[in-house]
Amino acid sequence: MTNAITELKAKGKAAKEASRRLAYLSTDIKNKALQNIAADLRGKTKEIIAVNKLDLKQASANGINETMQDRLLMNEARLEDIAKDVLVMAGLPDPVGEVFDMRTMPNDLLIGKKRVPLGVIGAMYESRPNVTIDISALCLKSGNAVILRGGKEAFNSNLALVKLVQQAISRAGVPEGAVQFVENTDRSLVGEMLKLNQYIDLMIPRGGAPFVKYVIENAAMPVVAGGIGVCHTFVDSSADMEKAVAIVYNAKVQKPSVCNALDTILVHQVVAEEYLPDVAKELAKAGVELHCDKAAMKILKPESGLKLKAAVQEDWGKEFLSLTAAIKVVDSLDDALAHIAKYGSGHSEAIITEDYSSGMRFLNEVDAACVYINASTRFTDGSQFGLGAEVGISTQKFHARGPLGLKELTSYKWIIFGSGQVRP
Amino acid sequence: MTNAITELKAKGKAAKEASRRLAYLSTDIKNKALQNIAADLRGKTKEIIAVNKLDLKQASANGINETMQDRLLMNEARLEDIAKDVLVMAGLPDPVGEVFDMRTMPNDLLIGKKRVPLGVIGAMYESRPNVTIDISALCLKSGNAVILRGGKEAFNSNLALVKLVQQAISRAGVPEGAVQFVENTDRSLVGEMLKLNQYIDLMIPRGGAPFVKYVIENAAMPVVAGGIGVCHTFVDSSADMEKAVAIVYNAKVQKPSVCNALDTILVHQVVAEEYLPDVAKELAKAGVELHCDKAAMKILKPESGLKLKAAVQEDWGKEFLSLTAAIKVVDSLDDALAHIAKYGSGHSEAIITEDYSSGMRFLNEVDAACVYINASTRFTDGSQFGLGAEVGISTQKFHARGPLGLKELTSYKWIIFGSGQVRP
Repeated sequence: MTNAITELKAKGKAAKEASRRLAYLSTDIKNKALQNIAADLRGKTKEIIAVNKLDLKQASANGINETMQDRLLMNEARLEDIAKDVLVMAGLPDPVGEVFDMRTMPNDLLIGKKRVPLGVIGAMYESRPNVTIDISALCLKSGNAVILRGGKEAFNSNLALVKLVQQAISRAGVPEGAVQFVENTDRSLVGEMLKLNQYIDLMIPRGGAPFVKYVIENAAMPVVAGGIGVCHTFVDSSADMEKAVAIVYNAKVQKPSVCNALDTILVHQVVAEEYLPDVAKELAKAGVELHCDKAAMKILKPESGLKLKAAVQEDWGKEFLSLTAAIKVVDSLDDALAHIAKYGSGHSEAIITEDYSSGMRFLNEVDAACVYINASTRFTDGSQFGLGAEVGISTQKFHARGPLGLKELTSYKWIIFGSGQVRP
Repeated sequence: MTNAITELKAKGKAAKEASRRLAYLSTDIKNKALQNIAADLRGKTKEIIAVNKLDLKQASANGINETMQDRLLMNEARLEDIAKDVLVMAGLPDPVGEVFDMRTMPNDLLIGKKRVPLGVIGAMYESRPNVTIDISALCLKSGNAVILRGGKEAFNSNLALVKLVQQAISRAGVPEGAVQFVENTDRSLVGEMLKLNQYIDLMIPRGGAPFVKYVIENAAMPVVAGGIGVCHTFVDSSADMEKAVAIVYNAKVQKPSVCNALDTILVHQVVAEEYLPDVAKELAKAGVELHCDKAAMKILKPESGLKLKAAVQEDWGKEFLSLTAAIKVVDSLDDALAHIAKYGSGHSEAIITEDYSSGMRFLNEVDAACVYINASTRFTDGSQFGLGAEVGISTQKFHARGPLGLKELTSYKWIIFGSGQVRP
């Protein structure tokens, strides 16, 4: 373990040193490095798949379930998709070097801000080996060095991919040390990595809620976390019923396993009798199970084709990640706002309304990363918002909120052009 | 202690609740509250001074040194200054509610960002009771609730000021709970407060370096810290000698006790013989003590009027906060950059040069909150940079860097105006 810690620190130091040069590396070199990565992914498909088979075999031997095994899998189509994503990133504008807020002060000092990388990003993640390429490419494009720590189950795949990346970027002239990989997969090393605020400027944890919580509470450096989405859609008394059915259906059904999918439907009592049977009928077509509060149950009744359950306390504030939704009838907009304030996770919340004031109140008063009027919460996504690549979705308010793109992996420095000014 | 923790959590909860309403409180109400605070400071000067005397008496009885006692002192002039500062804040633009990056997507979703407060700010500070008013006013104007935890030595003054603030803002219609004060000054409560990420969105520690370090490493919430400034000024081979003397003099002498004051002078060898005697002579007029490396000592020699000492290793990277400066002769711009990368604290760094390329390289390659060409580092300051009020100066890269004004106490939410869009 002592050796592993020493090695970890050495990697931290090397990444920090590399980050100094990366900070002002030209966009051309960074794009060339990304193009090399894509080319090598295409050129070494067979080798990667062969190495990936080792992890899959191990997973199967360890009795890991099929969903997890599928996450591990790399085949030709998936590698081609990853290569394409890397090329897309090469085509995105470079956030680094942007100069903004520039102005001349009364004493003729010309001052403003210049966008710079954060420095060194730490990334801890599980299973999916494509994250190794994703995060490496995002960090590279945004001028950051990165220290990757992938899960044990994808060790061989990750190692092969990291080597591919390191060779590809080196050919483009990116400094060695820009992409580091922690080979020791011992769990206790997580705690050690979280102490390294001397070398790591930002930690990105990817994994289940308890893991992310552990990282937030124990990291000595800033953490960007999120991805937990308890998303409500409130159908107001003035809602257009057709839109309300279509939007709720989309938010719940289009991809139920992700964080921006709908969890709870709140319905204004005035329209509950009209709305609930329609939406329930529609949701039933996709096999959605509905956990109803008393009022909703009274309206819907256990009729044929509807999967209904009485809602329990745990259903409120629950991220279902599946074809299940909770339904609650509320007395007013105020009740809906109070419910969201209490049970929401600050991710994505929507109101369906034709009433101007209700819409504006919802927009102003709901405290979440993304607040919608008359649209599906499924839009909360870097590419849907026009950011291109995405590191994740932050439910924190500090630094950046919502979908995190390349710009969100940067900071700025103040630059001051003087001509001999001194402070009076 | 259990009671104190329970009380602390209750205050956290109350602040969080107040923050929901504060988030969309109109600018008029916030400004009225600030005006009330200023009026009450003026109307209750005598009462405050009387309470402050209790703290001063206690300090004197405890044998606290005069500098510390002076920090505690509140007299008519100081209270008037504080009142004026609060009124200045009332006059600053409200950062909350700004809508930016608004655009229509190809699917006609209108999306953008709206600036919102962070929520609840925690502030831990020592001695100076004026911080109680400063931070309360900054948080109020930026729509944040605040939980204040002042030092034991200023307890009576802080308590009186908090009560004044609470009454003043309540008259303006600001929700109760917006300004909370932790009355228990037990040291162990600091640790408890650092755990409250459920209620506190950002922690601002103000105090000595070890305290700030402790907070950074132990806080479960984000921390804005800084204020440690090891500032270099590099006199390049092409520097205008007159400017170089004036700027270094200003950076060291104008206010040596603050974080943006000069600590180390780096001089290019080519101009060392010309520059050093001139600058040393000037600095001697203010009684500055110079800690010289071998080369600088050889040039300056212990001559009359100069306070010289041989520099020791600890002088590099030291924040002197007094009329002392270290001097080092370097071989090149590269040497200067390497020295700054090794010993700088990422606060404020300057180059004095007439060479375009040297200036641009310095600007690009130095990793600090504020990088200067041909100006004094003493300008690193919220009001000098045109931000108005300032919470502090951050040497971190996350969220905000350099002087932190009202805007830096905010976040944003994505707002999305739809007309029935669903994700394909």
